[in-house]
Amino acid sequence: MSEAVKVIGTRFSAFSHRAEVALRLKGVPYELIAEDLDNKSELLLRSNPVHGGKVPVLLHSDRAIPESLVIIEYVDEAFAGPPILPMDPHDRAAARFWAEFLDPKHLWRQLWLALWAADADARRRFREEAKTSLALLEAELGDRRFFAGDGIGYFDVAASGLAYWLAAMEEVAGVSIMADDEFPGLCRWAKEYTASETVKGCLPDWDELVAGYAASTEKFKLVAQQGL
Amino acid sequence: MSEAVKVIGTRFSAFSHRAEVALRLKGVPYELIAEDLDNKSELLLRSNPVHGGKVPVLLHSDRAIPESLVIIEYVDEAFAGPPILPMDPHDRAAARFWAEFLDPKHLWRQLWLALWAADADARRRFREEAKTSLALLEAELGDRRFFAGDGIGYFDVAASGLAYWLAAMEEVAGVSIMADDEFPGLCRWAKEYTASETVKGCLPDWDELVAGYAASTEKFKLVAQQGL
Repeated sequence: MSEAVKVIGTRFSAFSHRAEVALRLKGVPYELIAEDLDNKSELLLRSNPVHGGKVPVLLHSDRAIPESLVIIEYVDEAFAGPPILPMDPHDRAAARFWAEFLDPKHLWRQLWLALWAADADARRRFREEAKTSLALLEAELGDRRFFAGDGIGYFDVAASGLAYWLAAMEEVAGVSIMADDEFPGLCRWAKEYTASETVKGCLPDWDELVAGYAASTEKFKLVAQQGL
Repeated sequence: MSEAVKVIGTRFSAFSHRAEVALRLKGVPYELIAEDLDNKSELLLRSNPVHGGKVPVLLHSDRAIPESLVIIEYVDEAFAGPPILPMDPHDRAAARFWAEFLDPKHLWRQLWLALWAADADARRRFREEAKTSLALLEAELGDRRFFAGDGIGYFDVAASGLAYWLAAMEEVAGVSIMADDEFPGLCRWAKEYTASETVKGCLPDWDELVAGYAASTEKFKLVAQQGL
């Protein structure tokens, strides 16, 4: 039985990033198996058959664990090191509640349609919806450095897509959603998050990310058209 | 600070049932505040403002915890009593993975559209999709009495909608999805689950449930039309 830890994923995906940064917070060495989502590997399809080879998948002790939020909890429970989730049951519930709020079917759906919907009216409508959601997160963050307090915790990792990947999509789509003047707290948090040594080591290069997204806009628009 | 435990919910909702049965598995006394979802109470709207007064909400120590899966984990962590989630990190990850699979946006979306979509072709297509998903759960269950083994655990609670509420909807819609001959394991599990003393105490009366659903079919169809 192999004890090696591997992440099947891509640095172009904020969901995949969740798995990497969870392992880094715990100090667990791992290998990233970089995946081309336009040409998925046999390993990925075999490791996440239920969801058609969605990334990320964590491989540990010859077992495959899909779903990024499930992976963060698994990493927190299976490895020693500083806790990622809060200790208090109520704080844990709150962190899990807000992580669900970011779901691809909720906030990320609003963001995606605000960026990539074909219809300009729909884009505007979803931008307003997304901003209403972001305002809730802005209030939840308050004056804290990170959602978890002084250091990065579960919800910071869950929300990491807002800290970097969203801005790259905004640049490519030419749409501004999480702007400095409207969401100063979230934008400050995004800077703190991406400046962290733990995080920096697994961020994709900005220019490559923007170029990758620019090359994928037709695919993104198709996903938006299908309603996600 | 009140230590009283209350569930804002309705026995017509399998999601609400998850909260009740989690508390019962732990032996925690609680009060059910029955909610009329066509005429939501101020208390519910105030307790779950983010999701527009969705049930269930758990009230404990003057704090409100929404989202049924978050509630199960909270109850498991905040109260003594037999554990609801498995102990092994990998088993916990697997239980959480399958619980996500049941999500209103995944299996329950397939089921809902199989039952309530306006278009007969769409109903047939989603029935096939739902059956493919149920076949995965049938395989996951295998020969075990419950998903968690000899006793009811996290995923059994998460899946409880399949054990009782789905059959009532099938009866009202005149659609058969989780039939005995196709899913003998799941149907045996459903009988075991609903026969458990813990569960029986918080099941809605069958005739009332069917009558309630029959009175709500127009609403159900509207939700299906909006794509959930």
